[in-house]
This record gives sequence, C-alpha cells and structure tokens, in this order.
Amino acid sequence: MGEYLVEGKFVLTMSGAGIGVIENGAVIVSGQEISQVGNAEELKEKHAELPHLGGPEKIVMPGLIDAHIHTGIALLRGTAQDTWNWMQQGIAPFKKHMQPGDVRLGSMVNIIEGIKSGTTTFADYDYPLDEIINNYLEIGSRACLASTINELSPGMDKLKIGELYPLDEDLGRERLEKALELMEKWEKGGEGRLTFLLGPQGPDMLGEKLLEEIKDLSQGYGYKMHMHVAQGDREIDQMEKRYGLRSVPFLEKMGLIDENLIAVHLTEATEEETCLLAEKGAKMVHCPGSIGIIDGLVPPVLEFLEAGGSAGLGSDQAPGNNCNNMFNEMKMACILNKVKKADPTVMPAWKALRMATIEAAGVLGMEDTIGSLEEGKKADLLIIDINQPTLVPILGSPIRNIAPNLVYSARGHEVETVMVNGELIMENRKMKRVDEEKICREASAAGVELAKRAEGDILSSANEMVQLMEKGYL
Amino acid sequence: MGEYLVEGKFVLTMSGAGIGVIENGAVIVSGQEISQVGNAEELKEKHAELPHLGGPEKIVMPGLIDAHIHTGIALLRGTAQDTWNWMQQGIAPFKKHMQPGDVRLGSMVNIIEGIKSGTTTFADYDYPLDEIINNYLEIGSRACLASTINELSPGMDKLKIGELYPLDEDLGRERLEKALELMEKWEKGGEGRLTFLLGPQGPDMLGEKLLEEIKDLSQGYGYKMHMHVAQGDREIDQMEKRYGLRSVPFLEKMGLIDENLIAVHLTEATEEETCLLAEKGAKMVHCPGSIGIIDGLVPPVLEFLEAGGSAGLGSDQAPGNNCNNMFNEMKMACILNKVKKADPTVMPAWKALRMATIEAAGVLGMEDTIGSLEEGKKADLLIIDINQPTLVPILGSPIRNIAPNLVYSARGHEVETVMVNGELIMENRKMKRVDEEKICREASAAGVELAKRAEGDILSSANEMVQLMEKGYL
Repeated sequence: MGEYLVEGKFVLTMSGAGIGVIENGAVIVSGQEISQVGNAEELKEKHAELPHLGGPEKIVMPGLIDAHIHTGIALLRGTAQDTWNWMQQGIAPFKKHMQPGDVRLGSMVNIIEGIKSGTTTFADYDYPLDEIINNYLEIGSRACLASTINELSPGMDKLKIGELYPLDEDLGRERLEKALELMEKWEKGGEGRLTFLLGPQGPDMLGEKLLEEIKDLSQGYGYKMHMHVAQGDREIDQMEKRYGLRSVPFLEKMGLIDENLIAVHLTEATEEETCLLAEKGAKMVHCPGSIGIIDGLVPPVLEFLEAGGSAGLGSDQAPGNNCNNMFNEMKMACILNKVKKADPTVMPAWKALRMATIEAAGVLGMEDTIGSLEEGKKADLLIIDINQPTLVPILGSPIRNIAPNLVYSARGHEVETVMVNGELIMENRKMKRVDEEKICREASAAGVELAKRAEGDILSSANEMVQLMEKGYL
Repeated sequence: MGEYLVEGKFVLTMSGAGIGVIENGAVIVSGQEISQVGNAEELKEKHAELPHLGGPEKIVMPGLIDAHIHTGIALLRGTAQDTWNWMQQGIAPFKKHMQPGDVRLGSMVNIIEGIKSGTTTFADYDYPLDEIINNYLEIGSRACLASTINELSPGMDKLKIGELYPLDEDLGRERLEKALELMEKWEKGGEGRLTFLLGPQGPDMLGEKLLEEIKDLSQGYGYKMHMHVAQGDREIDQMEKRYGLRSVPFLEKMGLIDENLIAVHLTEATEEETCLLAEKGAKMVHCPGSIGIIDGLVPPVLEFLEAGGSAGLGSDQAPGNNCNNMFNEMKMACILNKVKKADPTVMPAWKALRMATIEAAGVLGMEDTIGSLEEGKKADLLIIDINQPTLVPILGSPIRNIAPNLVYSARGHEVETVMVNGELIMENRKMKRVDEEKICREASAAGVELAKRAEGDILSSANEMVQLMEKGYL
C-alpha cells in the first residue's frame, strides 16, 4: 500500500441521488483510504509526485459489493440447472461428498471470478467458514462474513420432497458457537478487511429457541442478521407445517423484523409481507439471476423499494445462478424487473449501479466505510477501460451513456484493475497475490473427483439432468 | 488456410437431438471445410503431421450464429435505455446525424465484439450496407446480409408518436434496386463467406406494391426474407391505421407467410398468429435481450417452438440490447422464458446452445454449410478454455454440466480462438486481421463527434435520458 493518484475520464462517485459523475476526475488514495476526490487537472498539479493509475481513457468507480454469495459450494457449478428440485435432488447428493479442500478450492475460484468482474466485497454466507476465511486473507479482497447457522442433520437428500426437515438443537448450538468463535478471532482481520454478521440460514432451518438466542445477540451487540427469508415455496411449506405460519408473520411474531435484519430473496413474500419488512427498516438482498434460474421467478424488489426499503444485489451461488459476477446481477435486476412489470423504465441502469455499490453498503451496515468514492472511505475501487468493444462509445453529453453501457453491455472483463483497502489486488487483469491458472486447474480436478464420489447418489436419485443426458440432450 | 487438427476435452458437435458431445474428440480441418470428426487419440495417430490446435483442456464447438443484428447503428450504444420511446425519441435524433464513417466504425466495433464472444456468422440487416460489407471482407467472419428495404422518408423524429409514417414509393424502389445490386455483386464474396437475404424492414415500413414485388423475387429465386414482424405495439398501431389489419393477418393476406419468411421478434404476435406462422413453415428469430430492455416483454418463442416452428437467437442492435454477444442471448433466452412461465425447466441450456448454432443455421437456410461440426461443413468453430474461473469445473459424468456452464456462466471471453472458413480470425483473444485497439479508439472519437452534431436535436426532444441526467441520476 502507498499513495496513488487514480485518474478517470469519468469518476463515478455514487455520491448524491445518482451515480455522481465527475468528468475528468481523480481520486487520491493514501494508505487504506481515499483522501481526496476531485478534478484531475487540479489534483495532478497538486500531487505530481504520486504514482499515477488510470487515465483519460478509463472509468473509475467504487468496487462492487456482492451482498449475498455462498462461495463454499462453487465446485457444484452447473450441476442443478433446468430442474424443479434444485436443492434436494440437484445439490444435496453432491454436497454430502464435499471435503474441506473442495470448499477451499471452489471458494477460491468463486472469489477470483468475482474480483475479475469487479467485486471487492463479498457478503459470504457459508459453513464451514475456516477455509473460506483463509482464502480472503490470501487473496486480499474485503469480506462481510456470516457462518451459516442451522439445525439440519445430514441426509437431506434422503427426505421425501415436502417432508418436514428434522431439526437438531445440538447441531444448531455447535454452529452458533463456531460462528461466535470465528467472529471473535477474525473480526477486523486482514487489516480490517474482514467483518462479520450473524447468519441464521432461514426461518425453516433452525428452531425457535436458537433464533431467540440469535435475536438477543443481534439486539444486544448490534450485529446484523444475514438470513434467507421466504426464499421458496419449499420454505413456506415447511413453515406452515411446523408453525402454521408463513415466514414473515413468523419472524414478526418472534420480534425479528427490525433494522438489523438483512432479508435475502423474499421470493415468496406477498406484497403485504414485503411492505411490512421495508416499513420496519429491514434490508433486502435481491438475487435476480439465481432466483430466475432456480425458480423462474422475480422477487418483489420493486415493491420493497417502493415501500421505502433499501436493497442490495447478490449473486447467490455458483450451482444455482451458475455465475458470480455483479455485472450479470445488475443487468438481470434491470431486465427481469422490466419484464415482470412490462415496463422498460423500471429498474433503470443507474439504480442497479447504486444497488451494487452504495446501497449494498447500507444494507450490510458498511455505508461509512465503502460503497462510494468519498474522502475518508476505504480505497476499494475499479479502473475500467473505456476502449473495450463492449463499451464503445462512452459519451459525456448530451446524454451520458455510461450507466447503460456498464449495466446493459459490459460483461465484467472490462475491469482492468481492482484496488481493495488501498492495495492493488488485480492489475491489468492479473491477480496479484494468487496464481489463478494453478487454482483453476486444481479446482477442475477436485470437481471431477467430487463428481466421482457422488456418482452413486446422483444416479440413484431422480435427477432431471441425468434424464436429459440419457435422452442425448446434454 | 491449411489443415489443422483441433482437439477438445469435449467436442460439442450439435449433431443429433442435443449438443452432440464427443469426449476426448477432435476435428480435422482441410482448407475451408471439416473433413473428419471423431476420437482425438485415433485422429492424432492418423494425422500426426497436422498443426495441432486446442487440447485436452478445451471445449471445441461450432461458431455462434447471430441470426439478427444491425451493426450499422452500433455507435448509438447506450443512448436510448430505460425509456418508453426508444425509436422516435431515443435513436432517431442521433441516427439522422450519422455519416458513412460512423456506420463503418460502429459496425466494425460490433463485429469485433461478436467475434470476441464467439459469433462467426452475423445475419446483418442494415442500410447502407456498402461499408458494412467491406468490414466483413476485412475482418474475415461469415455474414448473411440483408440490405434493409423501406419507404420511410427522413424526419421520423419529427413525427408525433402514433402518427402514420408517410411512405415514399420511389425511395423503396431505390432501396430494392440497391439491395439487388449488392446481392449480384457480393453473393459468395469473401471466399464464400458472404451470402444474402431479402430485407423488407417490416410490414409497416413499406407499401403493398413493393412487398408484392419482393414476394415474387423470394418465391421466384428462393431467396429468404429477413423481416421484422409484429415487433412492437407501434407497428401494430401503424398496420391497423393503414390497413385495418394486424401484421400477421396482413402478411397472410399478401401470401407472404411461407418457409421463406424469417419473422423477427413477434413481440406483439398473439398465440394464434404465432402458431399460424410456425405451421406455415416460417422461421422465427428471438432477440430476448433487446426486446426485454426496449419493451419489457418476452416474445412468444416457446409457443412458436411448441407449434413445431424452428427458431434462432439474435442480438439485435447495440442501442437497444446494448450488447451483441450470443452468450448473453443464450442466457437471456433461458432466464426470461423461465420467468415468463414461472417454470425453471423451460428453455433449458442445451436448447439455447442449439438455437445459437444448428437451429439458427436452419432459420437462415444455411444448415448444409454451418451450425454443427460435421464432415463437409465449413470449418467455423470456437476453442474455449475450460480453466477459466467462470467455467470451473467442467464435468463429463455423472452429469455433464457443459451446457449449463456455457449458457448460465460463461460471458464470452472464455472463447480463446475463433476459426471461420478454416481460417483463424482470432487467436488467443487477439484479432488476427484488424487492429482492435485502434478501431475502438477511432470509434469512440467518432461517437463523441456524432453526439455533438446531434446535441440540438436531442436537447429539443422530450428525451427521458436527458431528464434523468438533469435530475442527477445519470
């Protein structure tokens, strides 16, 4: 780390109501932080001695925030698409054969995929988290971690669809203790890059007693709760069978809906439930790609925003969404919501850019440190090449087409250089701290081995992808 | 051109009903054509002398076919998003200031964007086509061209929304003559890479007399007609005002619906109209990204396929869709149709791969020359690196996750090498015949100049993007 002057033809600060454009702008980075943002000419004159990054053919913007991702299961990418039973028949038969090395390698590939498409902060929601924490320390990105807490015993793949999951209190307690232990050990680790949330996995996946305890911790210590809520009809079905209540009314009864709740998905939330969450100050994470592919649905994010709520975007997980690229999520958020409402003006590009930066920061409770380019914030930023065929031409007037080009056209590889905490972790498309090619090769091999171990379980399940293969389609 | 052995860990031939996987396969290229497809070990032994491309960490597949694209207006990228009046208020005020050099440079950028994401054949539907033809000759990709025929006089941006377009017969005749002249001059040009279709721009954009004449040419000489049909409520409104008939009934009355019709979009086609087209043997091009962004709609491609029709995918145009990347279109086709039907099993990944290759070839009447890797076909193929973070891991068993990973995760930059007509036109991500960086820089500068010329018209229109800028959002 050191001092830099980062110049852009356009600097997107995300200050104000929109994307906060400064034409011919620059950012001064001092150590981990941004010390100045302003006009390039003035700053270049004043800081002529500083190493110079970016330039007049670049866009400079805040690093993207993936507000919901499970990197631990990335090695299952592509194993459960175009199917009705994504979880039990798709993922579960593979997942039970995963070993710690599989978690580590898959997660590493996922983090690299994210960084190479501009993600600087990963709200990773996983278990076990140990290997994943080491990955973040090694690779240098920011992570806002939640060790998933549930009471689900192994053997989910053997349950009948619709059968009530057995909950195991001891397992849940063990998971909570593990989470607290990691929080104590690693909070502010990696020179401040690691922070933590509580991570109950969903109202259907742990019992009332443990949820009550997590609520007390959240309210007592101010920890936010990163939690799947109304994530599918499967969850609602479990809730109704177990408690006679849908997810949101259940959480309300438990006193769990407040500004500390980060409600992820809301796929099955009714309009009334969505508004209730927004009005009580809960935050939402919208994962359009994942829910679109897994469920063929578009969650009620527009209704949540309309009710005054604040939402971020997340890529969810490689085996569902299949990719972890925030440029994909920004585009998906816009286009899927337009199609849902048959209205091309809803979810405009500038809003998606904010939901992947400053508004996501607010959702995670990190708005004072990241999400915009402002004095005093951490230096998490991207340098994007405007001479890529996907972005040409970039116009400053009479219309600024920067937001539409970034959201509707860019694919992620236009990001040339990534800085986190004032450190360059990718420069000119090259990961600086890790050997990308070696990791991908090892992860490929581990994936093939995992698939071999899972073969019996896969073939004996009613897996729809196996059926498609047998018919010669795949 | 010469002879090559192209090896893949997986060769996707697109033969049969699905993606036609050969594990450890190879393709022998002789001159412009594929002379053999089979097992890598056997072919390597038999053809040990041949230069070797690809390898055991690659996927080899047919080049992608963009069945509907307007490269000529690429320089307007990003100028008309998140708006209700895409055409008249968005595109038209810019378009009237375009000069031939703008068409050439924008088209070049668009073609490069396509090739770098695996497109080898562009069904380009444009006017004027001269500069664009030169681009294809220069760059070496395949193109299936249609010189757009309409009778629209300049000044579209000055019409009131909903006003009937005046049609100018002389202009239409001039356009038809120009189209025939180009067909005569360039059919089979570029060593056979250039072929032609007739290109009436839409039932609302030229008069009955000229349409009748084009029909006779199509039926007399077997030329297919590439045509927008029911592309928006604007078109239906024009048709009802002019003829008292919706587009499809009008075309039926004209005797224009047969196996020579390539009906593009069908955004506003009713289920009955869609089925009629499919049953009469017309083909469809589905442009999910473009129609999703411009109209917030998902055209009835599932209904068309269900009725026995055959469809390809297209990227349409940079200022609508904003990008021209067939990986984007494959993913959009899958996810937008899943969401439309609230069913994650519709439009599976393998089907999208076929609609971007062999089925698109059929739509364009090119199924004997391109779209699959089979002996005797033209050697248009892609070499894809499987060790990219977006694709890891690629599994061959017990589930093949190749199709989902290519469609739901790949972004296009995984395509390492592109061969067209037996010639490497991109190798290791580098364009072989043109200077990509120079073109992008020139196109950027031309875009800025064009925007300056258009400034007065843009600012005096009720352009919604200008309003968003004034509010500080863009």
